[in-house]
Amino acid sequence: MADLPPHVDIFEEGPREGFQIEPGPIPTADKVALIEALAETGLRHIQICSFVNTRLVPGWADAEAVATGFRPKPGVHYAALWFNETGLNRALAFAGKLAISGSISLAASNAFSIKNLNRGHAENLEAMRKQTAAHQKNGVKVTRVGVMAAFGCNYQGDIAPELVVRTVADGLAVATEFGETITDVSLADTMGWATPTRIERGVAAVRERWPELRIGLHLHDTRGLAVANAHAGLRLGVTKFDSTVGGLGGCPFAGQKGAAGNIATEELALLCEEMGIDTGIDLDALIEVGRLAERIVGHQLPSELLRAGSLDAFRRKAA
Amino acid sequence: MADLPPHVDIFEEGPREGFQIEPGPIPTADKVALIEALAETGLRHIQICSFVNTRLVPGWADAEAVATGFRPKPGVHYAALWFNETGLNRALAFAGKLAISGSISLAASNAFSIKNLNRGHAENLEAMRKQTAAHQKNGVKVTRVGVMAAFGCNYQGDIAPELVVRTVADGLAVATEFGETITDVSLADTMGWATPTRIERGVAAVRERWPELRIGLHLHDTRGLAVANAHAGLRLGVTKFDSTVGGLGGCPFAGQKGAAGNIATEELALLCEEMGIDTGIDLDALIEVGRLAERIVGHQLPSELLRAGSLDAFRRKAA
Repeated sequence: MADLPPHVDIFEEGPREGFQIEPGPIPTADKVALIEALAETGLRHIQICSFVNTRLVPGWADAEAVATGFRPKPGVHYAALWFNETGLNRALAFAGKLAISGSISLAASNAFSIKNLNRGHAENLEAMRKQTAAHQKNGVKVTRVGVMAAFGCNYQGDIAPELVVRTVADGLAVATEFGETITDVSLADTMGWATPTRIERGVAAVRERWPELRIGLHLHDTRGLAVANAHAGLRLGVTKFDSTVGGLGGCPFAGQKGAAGNIATEELALLCEEMGIDTGIDLDALIEVGRLAERIVGHQLPSELLRAGSLDAFRRKAA
Repeated sequence: MADLPPHVDIFEEGPREGFQIEPGPIPTADKVALIEALAETGLRHIQICSFVNTRLVPGWADAEAVATGFRPKPGVHYAALWFNETGLNRALAFAGKLAISGSISLAASNAFSIKNLNRGHAENLEAMRKQTAAHQKNGVKVTRVGVMAAFGCNYQGDIAPELVVRTVADGLAVATEFGETITDVSLADTMGWATPTRIERGVAAVRERWPELRIGLHLHDTRGLAVANAHAGLRLGVTKFDSTVGGLGGCPFAGQKGAAGNIATEELALLCEEMGIDTGIDLDALIEVGRLAERIVGHQLPSELLRAGSLDAFRRKAA
């Protein structure tokens, strides 16, 4: 049996990723309630909103209201998302409440980059140079390279580990140009192409080249393999995962409307805790927050664990 | 990376396990249609019905009608389930169409045995002696020992691998008493307690003691870990899995009403095929049958893959 890590850090993205795909507007108070409830479960990292163009993403027209409204809990790191200097500046207005650091965000698939960002990889690198300059100008460190579509792409098909390595290298080169030090690389299975084998190969290829970088996995459960993929990551010592409570999120990409969202935080936490890996999370409390998330969106979420309940509840009854 | 097996045998149990939990009666014609559609997907093993007490399981009052009605496809093995001599005799009436072999079915949890079968382990062993005698009398070989609740139990809590080994040994002893040769042992995660680590330990313990037995896994997705558990089995060279199309089945056990059913056949097949393990299954055809199963039961099934579609469809578009 592989050595599993003693502890993992789970980055909850439900409040941010979960609501942008819901058809109806989610009241600001509900977003705030979810953020505050998540902070009571032992989660230490919560992404609370997107500072994005409100015409393109009307669901986040209330980003400022959410960032203003939530009561931060000491010891919890709150983060937000932005894609340009305007967004960065909106986030900086909450520098007292939010942990602000910069990312260089690329896609391993050029076809995805064109479809999703409306610019190819080369143009996207240029945009990342501008964004890195903007971060520097504002005194914000750039610490992370993110690679979308790292395990496959609806528009480009399979993605070889070599292409992921090349994409990470391109991102690191931008950081080097600006004298920024990258500590983290995030590999995202944006469209649900990963398998445990692909996770092993992708993580191994990046780690072999840059053993000093901390690798995080951002997994989607589009085809039901997210938990198996997380386990493959754990076996390789990956200790950083993004997830969403209840599996909030959905998949907005072509031909996958109605498909599942991110790996569910509570299923990831169950996997870890039941294998002796500490997450710091109170699973029963988190499951209750998953049920709150279902009430907020008004429909069942993909997480199976929300319906079955944790094992500890049964252990207590059986004892 | 572990050596994965080149081929696995998937035993489809959707028609049998899937319908007994549905609230409304499923028309016989729909059951037959599902069985015949499944046989066109490349599946070689399909369990078609339960010959059980129709007062206790009214959903299977039409077992004979289903067994009579379906048109067998050459090369496909059709099986059924029974729990006593009456059931065996009903199955034997279809010996021309069904593959008939016997099982010794036990539970690693005595508490589960009492709650589910209304008899403890010792009484259950006695019942299995009677059942084995009945099989012998009818010229039916007993080839399999099945262990329910092999990875944990809602009523008894955690189940140690040693208890699984002891339960298998008890079943083998019954077979030996009657001069029967067991070739297969099936470990069932009846209530969704398995984790990849528990699968590794349970499978390793049984294999170490009886390297000559073929181990099969019967997995439920009660808490979202079924695919990860299947992957753990594959890594240990397990080549036999039960599953249900769409994840039909649900969990009838205490406190888990509404919980997910068996591992979905199409998600298991995707996992295998995408890692280079042959299943003989046409995945796109199977996904269509999963959608047929959803129309038959009249509600969405747990399989995420049904909504996302296979990767090959995207590969063809991307090429």
